Amino acid sequence: MPFIQQVSRLVALRNMSTNVKHYEYLVIGGGSGGVASSRRAASYGAKTLLIEAKAMGGTCVNVGCVPKKVMWYASDLATRLSHANEYGLFQGTELTREKLTFNWAQFKQKRDAYIERLNGIYERNLAKEGVDFMYGWAKFNKDGQVEVTKLDSTKELFTADRILIATGGTPIKPDGIEGYELGIDSDEFFKLEKQPKKVVVSGAGYIGVELAGVFHGLGTETHMVIRGETLLRKFDDSIQTAITDHYVKEGINIHKSAKICKVEKSDVTGKLTVYLDNGENISEVDELLWTIGRKTQLGFGCEHVGVELNDKEQVIVDEYQNTSAPNIYSLGDVIGKVELTPVAIAAGRKLSNRLFGPEKFANQKQDYENVPSVVFSHPEAGTIGLTEKEAIEKYGKDNIKVYNSKFTAMYYAMLEHKSPTSYKLVCAGEDEKVVGLHIVGDSSAEILQGFGVAVKMGATKADFDSCVAIHPTSAEELVTM
Amino acid sequence: MPFIQQVSRLVALRNMSTNVKHYEYLVIGGGSGGVASSRRAASYGAKTLLIEAKAMGGTCVNVGCVPKKVMWYASDLATRLSHANEYGLFQGTELTREKLTFNWAQFKQKRDAYIERLNGIYERNLAKEGVDFMYGWAKFNKDGQVEVTKLDSTKELFTADRILIATGGTPIKPDGIEGYELGIDSDEFFKLEKQPKKVVVSGAGYIGVELAGVFHGLGTETHMVIRGETLLRKFDDSIQTAITDHYVKEGINIHKSAKICKVEKSDVTGKLTVYLDNGENISEVDELLWTIGRKTQLGFGCEHVGVELNDKEQVIVDEYQNTSAPNIYSLGDVIGKVELTPVAIAAGRKLSNRLFGPEKFANQKQDYENVPSVVFSHPEAGTIGLTEKEAIEKYGKDNIKVYNSKFTAMYYAMLEHKSPTSYKLVCAGEDEKVVGLHIVGDSSAEILQGFGVAVKMGATKADFDSCVAIHPTSAEELVTM
Repeated sequence: MPFIQQVSRLVALRNMSTNVKHYEYLVIGGGSGGVASSRRAASYGAKTLLIEAKAMGGTCVNVGCVPKKVMWYASDLATRLSHANEYGLFQGTELTREKLTFNWAQFKQKRDAYIERLNGIYERNLAKEGVDFMYGWAKFNKDGQVEVTKLDSTKELFTADRILIATGGTPIKPDGIEGYELGIDSDEFFKLEKQPKKVVVSGAGYIGVELAGVFHGLGTETHMVIRGETLLRKFDDSIQTAITDHYVKEGINIHKSAKICKVEKSDVTGKLTVYLDNGENISEVDELLWTIGRKTQLGFGCEHVGVELNDKEQVIVDEYQNTSAPNIYSLGDVIGKVELTPVAIAAGRKLSNRLFGPEKFANQKQDYENVPSVVFSHPEAGTIGLTEKEAIEKYGKDNIKVYNSKFTAMYYAMLEHKSPTSYKLVCAGEDEKVVGLHIVGDSSAEILQGFGVAVKMGATKADFDSCVAIHPTSAEELVTM
Repeated sequence: MPFIQQVSRLVALRNMSTNVKHYEYLVIGGGSGGVASSRRAASYGAKTLLIEAKAMGGTCVNVGCVPKKVMWYASDLATRLSHANEYGLFQGTELTREKLTFNWAQFKQKRDAYIERLNGIYERNLAKEGVDFMYGWAKFNKDGQVEVTKLDSTKELFTADRILIATGGTPIKPDGIEGYELGIDSDEFFKLEKQPKKVVVSGAGYIGVELAGVFHGLGTETHMVIRGETLLRKFDDSIQTAITDHYVKEGINIHKSAKICKVEKSDVTGKLTVYLDNGENISEVDELLWTIGRKTQLGFGCEHVGVELNDKEQVIVDEYQNTSAPNIYSLGDVIGKVELTPVAIAAGRKLSNRLFGPEKFANQKQDYENVPSVVFSHPEAGTIGLTEKEAIEKYGKDNIKVYNSKFTAMYYAMLEHKSPTSYKLVCAGEDEKVVGLHIVGDSSAEILQGFGVAVKMGATKADFDSCVAIHPTSAEELVTM
């Protein structure tokens, strides 16, 4: 049951003095979710204000998906270059990993310029849609008003009929470890002005896997320190195994079943020594990168308006994005549900459809089931639905049928050095409904989108098979297993 | 209505002497369809003989999809190399198109070796499944027996309970044009031992577009002579325009509204001069490639067994692959319906399921609707369902809604030189059922497979939109249009 939709005005948030500006919709956080929701609200004519503390576009545009994918492209291309000679191309020139050079500093400038262009596009799109926006730190004051400290330190006060909390998240560092502050987090990764020669990446999650892949592909000596035996522990076993094995084969030094217990910096060389709890240490390290998790960005007075948080400090919402406070909503990474840009965008648009749109959207809400997601590892991995283990737990082993296929994509037939492709289809019940799809291999991110549509529609194995294969591709394997 | 399934034995084909060997299933043609059908039949225990005239795997493996895709990979990689410097990679080395070298001769050897490995795999798979196979030219003799002239010129006679004609097709040359025989066809393209410096490709169909793309990508000066204004005339306008414009922009010389009327070869230089009917001529040409169409491979006595052909010399079959002769079936390129490897494979398997499989397959047949297909141009194109024009014709203009999106994929944000992405969704009726999908851009072949499943399931625009986007990809545009 949804909360009862509250249409009454929240008295505490009303305009109570001439210095307080009032909006119909006030959005805190100009990330993917906030921008999408504010634009959609304004498109329905709602007087909308968006407040962003740093850069428009939030994590995704500035320190997430976008610059990460740009770096992934560079790293992927570097790897492809090493295939050139075997493909008969530029045989007079050794385009090997050993001879690789990468102009990190120049490329970072180019990447930053691209991000700035995107920031500008975001601003122009907001303006075009009629959204007011400002830069500053918002907080709820004791009267429940929104107080914004602008970049020039002046303050402004706002009230609104409805407020959206979409302040996102931020990476964490393990403050219990001696010398932890000598390491950087993923935000700081994007500030690196020069390429480290040797790095340690701590963490086996997708961010660590992606950035370690980027470093390695661009020629950095790369170490990963992980607590377990495999990378990507939240993913299906087939993905864990394929990526971990390939990273090892590629020459990434994975220190398994290990934790970092101390970090030291040499005053002479400026290099780090990273000590592991298994007695090993990794010396002459240029950068230590913590990718051990993210936390929500809060601490701006939610208690003053009665917005409740869970024990992970995430905003508690119902399925309609309603918080515990009337007329205050939340979505995106700050609710910690499915921390993906497109989920925040979709949820943001749907919320505004519901709040400000036509009657037909009165009950619209985001579906958090069967959301596809990918990892920009080398090669990529993608997943939708249940892992094999989850499916067995949910349906029972006898009701699950699993289809596996491992092969070498045709591209690698011309190369000594192969990259894996591994596909798994998890089907449930008599009709073999596809309840999980887990893929590793080139173009997995692009491949998954269409299969995501099919799975969301309730596709069975027979539906997969009824589509004629597209030859020669890797994806065709998914309809011929 | 299917033909009545004929289970009686065909007397004319029975074993009538001790020199005549009898099989339950005799397959003429070891291409994709023949191999798939014979293996499936044998898997049900049917005593099966497969006769192949040249090389196992047919057009696809030997002179089609496979070596074409391998060449496409080389050409695609050559293009990527020219992006390296802008991506900050190997900046001391000019990896430009002008400096490009490609060792065609060596790469051809490597490609041929790969094809030979595949030929071997095909043979081993046949053997593993218990299919007898032999090399030779089969024909129906006047008694309706199958007479095979083997490679050593000896002959063998066979009869069978059921016979499959899967002899495929072969490229044609325009024998009315003076000097036409100086040009090569696509079979001969794969025999080229060295890279031509300058080529003329005649024809705007997908084979011409693919091979012209390969030549150009590998540094050959490439001319195309086409009768109309655009390439890929059988595809949706959006694909025609995107590919034609990009090929022109890339520097392929497209001679539009032109026909070749004469070809001459210089005795001195060995070079060709290609004369066009618009008065132009293209001189100093190393190779002229005819890609003007394909014809069926027949002429082996179908008249002796009563197998009827249409006016295009294609075998006439009903929806169950039955020919006009009892117990003789046909599929693949020789029926000229949908000339694609996976269609032949699927049809071959289904036919054997129906003929030799369990009761549940008694009415199985291949569905020729909504078959996805792609073009390995640069960039790739893919299509499923109706073009916009066909949809308007079928449903009426007022019942069609078209969604278009053209954008530059993120990969090209770092590059001066862009490659296009163009997506079109053709929807019909109130519920906006997706009746056509036409895409141009990197990874289109891989992207299309999953969407093909969804379209085949009857996806609507709302089904597309209900799947969360995968960010950042190109494919996500298809669920957010």
